[in-house]
Amino acid sequence: MSQRLGVIDDPLIGIRDGRIVSVGPSTGEPPAAREVLDASGCLVLPGLINTHTHLPMVCFRGLADDLELMEWLEGHIFPAEARHMSPETVSAGSRLAMAEMILSGTTTFCDGYFFEDSTARAALETGMRAVVCQGIVDFPTPDAPDPSRNLELAEDFLKTWKGASDLITPALFCHAPYTCGPQTYRAVKDLAREQGVFLHTHVAETRTEVMTITQRYATTPIRHLHNLGVLDGQTVAVHCVWVDEEEIELLAASGTKVSHNPQSNMKLASGIAPIPRMLEQGITVGLGTDGCASNNDLDLLDEMDTAAKLHKVANLDPTLMDAATVLAMATTGGARTLGLEGVVGAIEPGMAADLILLDLSSPHLTPLYHPISHTVYAASGADVKTSVIAGRIVMRDRHLLTLDVEEAMQQVRSVATRIRG
Amino acid sequence: MSQRLGVIDDPLIGIRDGRIVSVGPSTGEPPAAREVLDASGCLVLPGLINTHTHLPMVCFRGLADDLELMEWLEGHIFPAEARHMSPETVSAGSRLAMAEMILSGTTTFCDGYFFEDSTARAALETGMRAVVCQGIVDFPTPDAPDPSRNLELAEDFLKTWKGASDLITPALFCHAPYTCGPQTYRAVKDLAREQGVFLHTHVAETRTEVMTITQRYATTPIRHLHNLGVLDGQTVAVHCVWVDEEEIELLAASGTKVSHNPQSNMKLASGIAPIPRMLEQGITVGLGTDGCASNNDLDLLDEMDTAAKLHKVANLDPTLMDAATVLAMATTGGARTLGLEGVVGAIEPGMAADLILLDLSSPHLTPLYHPISHTVYAASGADVKTSVIAGRIVMRDRHLLTLDVEEAMQQVRSVATRIRG
Repeated sequence: MSQRLGVIDDPLIGIRDGRIVSVGPSTGEPPAAREVLDASGCLVLPGLINTHTHLPMVCFRGLADDLELMEWLEGHIFPAEARHMSPETVSAGSRLAMAEMILSGTTTFCDGYFFEDSTARAALETGMRAVVCQGIVDFPTPDAPDPSRNLELAEDFLKTWKGASDLITPALFCHAPYTCGPQTYRAVKDLAREQGVFLHTHVAETRTEVMTITQRYATTPIRHLHNLGVLDGQTVAVHCVWVDEEEIELLAASGTKVSHNPQSNMKLASGIAPIPRMLEQGITVGLGTDGCASNNDLDLLDEMDTAAKLHKVANLDPTLMDAATVLAMATTGGARTLGLEGVVGAIEPGMAADLILLDLSSPHLTPLYHPISHTVYAASGADVKTSVIAGRIVMRDRHLLTLDVEEAMQQVRSVATRIRG
Repeated sequence: MSQRLGVIDDPLIGIRDGRIVSVGPSTGEPPAAREVLDASGCLVLPGLINTHTHLPMVCFRGLADDLELMEWLEGHIFPAEARHMSPETVSAGSRLAMAEMILSGTTTFCDGYFFEDSTARAALETGMRAVVCQGIVDFPTPDAPDPSRNLELAEDFLKTWKGASDLITPALFCHAPYTCGPQTYRAVKDLAREQGVFLHTHVAETRTEVMTITQRYATTPIRHLHNLGVLDGQTVAVHCVWVDEEEIELLAASGTKVSHNPQSNMKLASGIAPIPRMLEQGITVGLGTDGCASNNDLDLLDEMDTAAKLHKVANLDPTLMDAATVLAMATTGGARTLGLEGVVGAIEPGMAADLILLDLSSPHLTPLYHPISHTVYAASGADVKTSVIAGRIVMRDRHLLTLDVEEAMQQVRSVATRIRG
């Protein structure tokens, strides 16, 4: 399956030096190659792209559900982060999350958290493609006990990771308008521009946020960011649930990218982002799972299913968000959101060889009329059989080849034991 | 996990003659038994109960998505049914669907379709517990070319299956108020009462239905069924999306059961049923997947996740539909919906030994704080390892023991080849 080439039956995909060099119908014998990956009975898809997550939060998976957002965040998540997050726990959580992502078809992720160095190193180890965003808030954190040094840390982080690997793209992450003041946003965006990197930020997630920001700044969150000069083609606005028509126009006109996280928005009861309208206005939208404490998994195949169904029912229109639109959101749309267009998101010559094999030989994927329908509406993460990133096989027949999954689970279980106290 | 006993660590469950005879914490050596099933590293749950589906529609999985309901139904589904459904295709579809259900943790299902005899026989073969409802509509179908003989066929069906097996409960299924006239509903409900069986019916699924019924009968669908004397404790009202407060009271006062099918209602953009309000009013609600043409799978673990999240976001209240409430809907609630309370839905002495083992040793289920949270928010059908129905192991380590899954898939692929034409 390729965006430009459409669905090809019985294809042959040539890969050299981590890139796709040829895509076409198979004609008899495969040419000589160092390795031939037999995809019989499988659907070959571009690797999925998770445009927003907080990987180390796997450590809090299921710790606190079904609570009011502020009780959840301030009563459970922030204290657990303050007490238990360290380079070691971030590393352990990131590695477990990468195991989960590879096992469910994600090949590229964008993470925003503290101790982002540890996540970037884990990505190098596991061979995943990553946009790693150093997290910034105005209050002290275990990573930056002195918030006045945030910018310095961010600069160091960019210095370390710019050009360090073809697979790693560093970026910056201002947590949200209610945790980062105007000065922070301005300074961080200036640094991002100067360094040519993306700025990610949560924005307009909840009604409470809209009220808080309106009280503080006499305007709504998106307009606030617009006033600060933050909105442009290298900013990713995550959530955008509470946006009006004029704000959608601000996002569209500025070229701001949007990361849509439907399951998190549902579980935290934040609201339903007007994604169909944003797509209509030409906004680039990528799909994300958000962190595991508010989802509670990192399965993008499941997230696609939810995205399609949620907007249909919210608009009482079953033709909205058809399967192809949603698959595009998790592939080409995700790539554009992260500034990786032309690199990943489609199986075409010249693109990186990031692809997954979806095993179609299961009862729940039988019969097969339309492969894109199955991908969105019937498949789940467990159907992904094999995964290739930059030409490297990172999972074969559901065996992870670049990390020790038992060790990753054991390490996070130890973290959880400490969290349980 | 048991409804009454709560969550038990390291339990020992005794099973004799298809029933649970003891449940308690494990104390050293297990007692002598013909067979010991080691559930180490697993969560033992009551088998899940799917209160509404149309199994043979697996044959149409992904055939037509993202369409207006009436175009979908009248342009694709009804014609495909008229042309391709027969005792043989219903049998093939049912067997494939049973494979899918067992593989994803369902042990009891309620099916409503044509040629229901074939589905009942397939259930006997595969060892699943089933409520099988012979479908009734006022227009000719392949099963009943002469609708005036519907009642006769229904009576024959009940005669065949009443008392035929402990695992099979026959019932009747009037398709919907827009396909069954008042006379049909009255006659079918009379027969159901006389025979002591349940009546299932789709009702109040879409706004179009409300308009149609209001035009025809000058009242809304639920009131219409109430006027016909159809609502009582042995009626299952499926969908109930478009119901007002007074109709919720009619359902509650009459003891009518409700089957909630969130993913189908989302995909067809029917609307969001006011389930939290129904639960508040004491209505028994079970969970269902609906048929595969409108979901497109039969995975109740995934359906639980959606049910929890959908009502939270629809009501902007994250405390609604907590994990325990949703799990109850797929177990004890499902049992009550189908008239199987005291038989299935909980792991307690005296209940049937219908249980599933959920493998917890995966990255996406690590770490473990609360098993019910994982069941609802993080697990998917593929995590079910072993399944027991009435004391019989029907799946062990994901190998189906009561049906040939390759044959089941092959048969449905042949049906699909004919449908494709």
